[in-house]
Amino acid sequence: MPPGTLVHIGERRREDVTIIVIGYDRDRFEEFACRNPEDAFSCLDRPGVTWINVDGLHDTGIIRALCDHAGIHPLTQEDIAHTGQRPKLEDYGDYLYIVIRMFSFEDGSIRQEQVSIVLGETRVISFQEQRGDVFSPVRERLRQNRGRIRAAGADYLTYALLDALVDAYFPILEELGNRVEALEAMALAEPGSGITEGIYGLKRELRTLRQSIWPLREVVSAFARGDSNLIREPTLVYLRDVYDHAMQVAETVEIYRDTVAGVLELHLSEASRRMNEVIKVLTIIATIFIPLTFIAGVYGMNFAFMPELEQPLGYPAVLLGMLAVALVMLAFFRKRRWI
Amino acid sequence: MPPGTLVHIGERRREDVTIIVIGYDRDRFEEFACRNPEDAFSCLDRPGVTWINVDGLHDTGIIRALCDHAGIHPLTQEDIAHTGQRPKLEDYGDYLYIVIRMFSFEDGSIRQEQVSIVLGETRVISFQEQRGDVFSPVRERLRQNRGRIRAAGADYLTYALLDALVDAYFPILEELGNRVEALEAMALAEPGSGITEGIYGLKRELRTLRQSIWPLREVVSAFARGDSNLIREPTLVYLRDVYDHAMQVAETVEIYRDTVAGVLELHLSEASRRMNEVIKVLTIIATIFIPLTFIAGVYGMNFAFMPELEQPLGYPAVLLGMLAVALVMLAFFRKRRWI
Amino acid sequence: MPPGTLVHIGERRREDVTIIVIGYDRDRFEEFACRNPEDAFSCLDRPGVTWINVDGLHDTGIIRALCDHAGIHPLTQEDIAHTGQRPKLEDYGDYLYIVIRMFSFEDGSIRQEQVSIVLGETRVISFQEQRGDVFSPVRERLRQNRGRIRAAGADYLTYALLDALVDAYFPILEELGNRVEALEAMALAEPGSGITEGIYGLKRELRTLRQSIWPLREVVSAFARGDSNLIREPTLVYLRDVYDHAMQVAETVEIYRDTVAGVLELHLSEASRRMNEVIKVLTIIATIFIPLTFIAGVYGMNFAFMPELEQPLGYPAVLLGMLAVALVMLAFFRKRRWI
Amino acid sequence: MPPGTLVHIGERRREDVTIIVIGYDRDRFEEFACRNPEDAFSCLDRPGVTWINVDGLHDTGIIRALCDHAGIHPLTQEDIAHTGQRPKLEDYGDYLYIVIRMFSFEDGSIRQEQVSIVLGETRVISFQEQRGDVFSPVRERLRQNRGRIRAAGADYLTYALLDALVDAYFPILEELGNRVEALEAMALAEPGSGITEGIYGLKRELRTLRQSIWPLREVVSAFARGDSNLIREPTLVYLRDVYDHAMQVAETVEIYRDTVAGVLELHLSEASRRMNEVIKVLTIIATIFIPLTFIAGVYGMNFAFMPELEQPLGYPAVLLGMLAVALVMLAFFRKRRWI
Amino acid sequence: MPPGTLVHIGERRREDVTIIVIGYDRDRFEEFACRNPEDAFSCLDRPGVTWINVDGLHDTGIIRALCDHAGIHPLTQEDIAHTGQRPKLEDYGDYLYIVIRMFSFEDGSIRQEQVSIVLGETRVISFQEQRGDVFSPVRERLRQNRGRIRAAGADYLTYALLDALVDAYFPILEELGNRVEALEAMALAEPGSGITEGIYGLKRELRTLRQSIWPLREVVSAFARGDSNLIREPTLVYLRDVYDHAMQVAETVEIYRDTVAGVLELHLSEASRRMNEVIKVLTIIATIFIPLTFIAGVYGMNFAFMPELEQPLGYPAVLLGMLAVALVMLAFFRKRRWI
Repeated sequence: MPPGTLVHIGERRREDVTIIVIGYDRDRFEEFACRNPEDAFSCLDRPGVTWINVDGLHDTGIIRALCDHAGIHPLTQEDIAHTGQRPKLEDYGDYLYIVIRMFSFEDGSIRQEQVSIVLGETRVISFQEQRGDVFSPVRERLRQNRGRIRAAGADYLTYALLDALVDAYFPILEELGNRVEALEAMALAEPGSGITEGIYGLKRELRTLRQSIWPLREVVSAFARGDSNLIREPTLVYLRDVYDHAMQVAETVEIYRDTVAGVLELHLSEASRRMNEVIKVLTIIATIFIPLTFIAGVYGMNFAFMPELEQPLGYPAVLLGMLAVALVMLAFFRKRRWI
Repeated sequence: MPPGTLVHIGERRREDVTIIVIGYDRDRFEEFACRNPEDAFSCLDRPGVTWINVDGLHDTGIIRALCDHAGIHPLTQEDIAHTGQRPKLEDYGDYLYIVIRMFSFEDGSIRQEQVSIVLGETRVISFQEQRGDVFSPVRERLRQNRGRIRAAGADYLTYALLDALVDAYFPILEELGNRVEALEAMALAEPGSGITEGIYGLKRELRTLRQSIWPLREVVSAFARGDSNLIREPTLVYLRDVYDHAMQVAETVEIYRDTVAGVLELHLSEASRRMNEVIKVLTIIATIFIPLTFIAGVYGMNFAFMPELEQPLGYPAVLLGMLAVALVMLAFFRKRRWI
Repeated sequence: MPPGTLVHIGERRREDVTIIVIGYDRDRFEEFACRNPEDAFSCLDRPGVTWINVDGLHDTGIIRALCDHAGIHPLTQEDIAHTGQRPKLEDYGDYLYIVIRMFSFEDGSIRQEQVSIVLGETRVISFQEQRGDVFSPVRERLRQNRGRIRAAGADYLTYALLDALVDAYFPILEELGNRVEALEAMALAEPGSGITEGIYGLKRELRTLRQSIWPLREVVSAFARGDSNLIREPTLVYLRDVYDHAMQVAETVEIYRDTVAGVLELHLSEASRRMNEVIKVLTIIATIFIPLTFIAGVYGMNFAFMPELEQPLGYPAVLLGMLAVALVMLAFFRKRRWI
Repeated sequence: MPPGTLVHIGERRREDVTIIVIGYDRDRFEEFACRNPEDAFSCLDRPGVTWINVDGLHDTGIIRALCDHAGIHPLTQEDIAHTGQRPKLEDYGDYLYIVIRMFSFEDGSIRQEQVSIVLGETRVISFQEQRGDVFSPVRERLRQNRGRIRAAGADYLTYALLDALVDAYFPILEELGNRVEALEAMALAEPGSGITEGIYGLKRELRTLRQSIWPLREVVSAFARGDSNLIREPTLVYLRDVYDHAMQVAETVEIYRDTVAGVLELHLSEASRRMNEVIKVLTIIATIFIPLTFIAGVYGMNFAFMPELEQPLGYPAVLLGMLAVALVMLAFFRKRRWI
Repeated sequence: MPPGTLVHIGERRREDVTIIVIGYDRDRFEEFACRNPEDAFSCLDRPGVTWINVDGLHDTGIIRALCDHAGIHPLTQEDIAHTGQRPKLEDYGDYLYIVIRMFSFEDGSIRQEQVSIVLGETRVISFQEQRGDVFSPVRERLRQNRGRIRAAGADYLTYALLDALVDAYFPILEELGNRVEALEAMALAEPGSGITEGIYGLKRELRTLRQSIWPLREVVSAFARGDSNLIREPTLVYLRDVYDHAMQVAETVEIYRDTVAGVLELHLSEASRRMNEVIKVLTIIATIFIPLTFIAGVYGMNFAFMPELEQPLGYPAVLLGMLAVALVMLAFFRKRRWI
């Protein structure tokens, strides 16, 4: 297919696509939902900042209509629809295109989806794969006019969205941190079958997270460098703050990876120590009793002429001899510091 | 031999060399196959873009005739014929020379061949080792005038070829991904003889892929930097897209390598856990019965004077004694948490 | 919450917040403690350098009052209150904001807290999580007018604080160095259960230290580059000295990490060598006596017709045979160099 | 000793030092051997390019005479005589000094020697440790005036020598590749004693090769950058080609190192799998027969009153009991999937 | 303590501090020892180069007197007295301060001390921890006016000192190389207890060396870059030579580290191969004789009614049966390729 062809990759959902339009400036705030991209266009022409959020990517007609009206390049449209992009920032001159992965918990397992943000002069258009996101605090601040968000421009709104997306990593990290600690405790307790799979599974989730957080760090870093004139100077200090958070997430992931590797090492070393102990016990028991059993076997032989057997003190003498052998063995083991 | 000597390295094939010439501009499209390089020259002089594709490198005469006519440096000619080059981009001023490895499946195993692309002002000459390639979608788009390919220049055609080559990595990745998953499942099930070889083989294929994808990434990156004036500005955004894909392939390969290393670790740890279990069973059985067998051996001795043997309750007493020894042993094992 | 919201993260302490104000120049020195940020303001307007040190971050009202009066950005205020920042240096134009982690011993375990330093033209404001710090030598030098500290500006005071913070890493390193040596000795002596946990714990503490020291190194390096005009040229050579110390701490941590990894390797190799020995002893005893016991078993059988049993020399012949078997076995082991 | 003192380090050889002088330009070619450096001087003054090749470094008088006449710095002279230099390129303004290691096979083992090349405006002086080199094809091309070598300058000759030196790595790589493959086959077949030493030896040879190829890559890269005006522009494209080859050698060495590490891993994993199997067999046999032997031992005791012994069906009953025990054991092993 | 406080860290020695003053130019050479720094001052004012070498750092009064007279910054003085600095080069404008570690052998173990060199316009002041150094060849060359050292300036003298310091690494490397080779031989011979400690000790010494050589490389590199105008242009080529040597030392250390890691791997793999063999022998002996012993045990039972016992051919039949069992076992082992 030629480049810029709009095909939605990813789970096909039943839900309708929802478009939520928020228009605001220092004094004004309007918010409405619509199904039809054309309904959103009117808002774009009003003064102030317009934020159009699209939930659902499977109706490529809506994406195309919205993007064409907003002057978005076909390749960007393709990337919006093709979920599975790696996080990136692309400067198309009159708009910036940002791809980030949004993480959340769903029934105890980590769910991720692609969020695309297009930042223009006075508008922000964001695309998500499905309903439910981490942007509620931003909407709340817009509605209640808390902080300087209503007074600032589209670049500050984009910062707020990025901040919300990066902050959503922290509960995930906390959960993974708990799992790391649980594995740590398991590794020192009875090493059973489950721990290696646990470590392996955790490693895989950390890998997924890492794969997403490292390019994100670069995205925010490129963003905070402020090369584009779509980003006003006062916003930069806020972006630097997001960068710090992204850096903190990245470092925590690295530390968890390091810790998990250490837990595996600890577990293997502990398992090998236990096996050594088992083998030691086997060795001690076997090496003491095998010679004794041999002696007993010798005097159990049925030869007609075995003079010892006729001695009245033969039996206690042999028992004493066996005891002596056992004691010599034990002394040997003690010298070797096995017992 | 002096540099620039044309010697074909690689499998010598029976097939004849085929030259497919495609000439096009916004309104015109012609396509014909020929055996003789001279037949292709006429097309080069017509306006519009000319794409000459050569299938088969063993007839060095054809390569030389074509290249000499197109003003291609002898060193480039040597590199075209010497397959086994690492992917690279070389700027010769009036043309760019690109080497890339083309991957495809053939009977379940991965096949690779060298593709050389020479990008001039209005022409693209591509060389492949044998018939069969990943360029059919590009040809289809040219024939049917889909997208902007017919309206754009030779640089856009080169982009389209690179895009097709990079996209051909994805089915390979998918297949390898399946193998990784199969190994993962095997590592947790009964560890047999096959898994280490499986891991080793997979590692080798990932190494081959990696060896090809990393320089490719650099090639596309150098290409997308647009230092050469053979590449027009609007093509750059498309090249950035190819770069993104190459990056995604490279990252996936790294993740697979990491995963395979993890699978090996999991497998070894699982195998060692199983061995520990086996040794534990051996130890428990042996350490319980070895002392008992010794006691039985003692009372099987044939000494004339063994007072216990004459006791009417000697036998049950010994049996009880043995039971006691066994129970002490079991208690010891339970304390050590072996059973 | 909107960015710049002041919420204190971290342990909530009972103690009151203490503010200690030190004002000085070449001839003047005043020092007083107060509870009320307003009491500190007067000092800021006097000539010379003012150092305001705040112990305790849980009363965000105090932080806000102090910072707002000193013209500190809300994001900086947020970072001061949110402990758990990674070490960083931020240039806000008219002030530099530095975050560093302060390490100290408390009851044998390593304690860390966040120290924030705000360097302005003629003042330094520092924030700590709790009372007790590593700045006593700096205060002493100020009080007694030792060295050039009273004659120099706020940048030199900041250097002195950084120097004290970095120097506080050295006793920690020394303590960890002792633990590394103790582990080393343990690894070569009887390998017991404690060593792997010891190594694991040490690794974790080194990881924590490393996580703090690497960004600190960057902070001091950025500081010593002297891009900000808040830092006068003669102070740079002192900062270079702090950088050297930070570098030394970082390298020592790396060496300890390397050493600990080596200790683990040594310990595992030693443990496996001991297990080999144990298994060898088991093998020697078992392989010598198992055949002998078998022979004894044969002549313990109760068959009616076993001609050997009737031979007068049968018993000594069998004993000699057994001895021969044992000697052959021992010769075999000696040839294999097992004994 | 003061720097620039000429002392020959390395094996002292019996052979005389041979000097081969080749003078050429587009139309002229002369070649003669001499023992006396003075004999070579005359050729230097003639127009065209002069290549003086010295075989043997033990006569430092010859090196000094030649170098002093050619205006070569004493430090360069010292480096020429002190073999064991790492590959490097040094720009002394009016000449470039290149050190490279020449590899060749001698009786199946890899032999290396130091080659020093001094490139001046119109002359090339090369020094080798002993007779026999990889420059024959270059000499042949000069004699037969093949390619553009006679028409080009001293820089092109240096390129040709570098190219020959780099090309000489490929047969070494091929041989090592064969050994890698042989080890691979061995690792999967019966793991004997030789494989670990084989791997270790191969690793060592790869290390030697790597130690030489990485700086060589840098040398050629610095050379191809063309900072010196001793290198004419048309030669640069050829040097880029040599760089490609050096890069290919370096990558192949890395791949072999990776492969060898993989072979070791495979071998260890295979060996541990086999040991597991051995231990399983031991465990199965021992755990089945040890209890049975105990039962037999019980009924071999000589107590006067053992009622079972008098039962007519005692013997078959015990045999059946033993069978039952064995079957239970086997069922247990099957359940554990050991057999 | 304020920065720049002079406190000597390190072993306190009994010896007096010795100051050796050497003054020279092309025609003049004077050398005298003194105890009093003031005696050295006169020489500083004479034309030509003055080299003041101080052996012993414990008398901080001498250091201070000398440094204050020579205009050396208090921080530099502190670094001179605080031994344990990492190698570094600091440019104080009118002098360069160099710290390097000097290595030597003392009774078979490696000894290191800190050497500080202060390079001024016409003077070099060097500080060592104790008497005995590697500078004798330099002094000899000065006394005998060998090479260009007397004709050159203070920068050349500094080069000569650096060169002597770097050259002193080579005998250390040679000794370590011998130990590496001895370990290599041990790893393949009987693996005893000493080898892991040997490897561990060698690793530690290589770590120490590495910790010193890497920053040294940077020091020489910064020196050779010639940013300071205290270094004249003709000296640069000599510094480049020292850099080459430092690089060679660094690379050799890396190779030794790699080799030692390989030796450990080889040793572990060899030890595990031997253990496999031991276990195989145990398994073969045990699995053959355990069933046989069981059979003998069965016919040693004392049941009244055991028909086999009465058969005249019972005994030979059982012996044959035992032989058959043993042969089947041996065949099984041969099939498994254990024997």
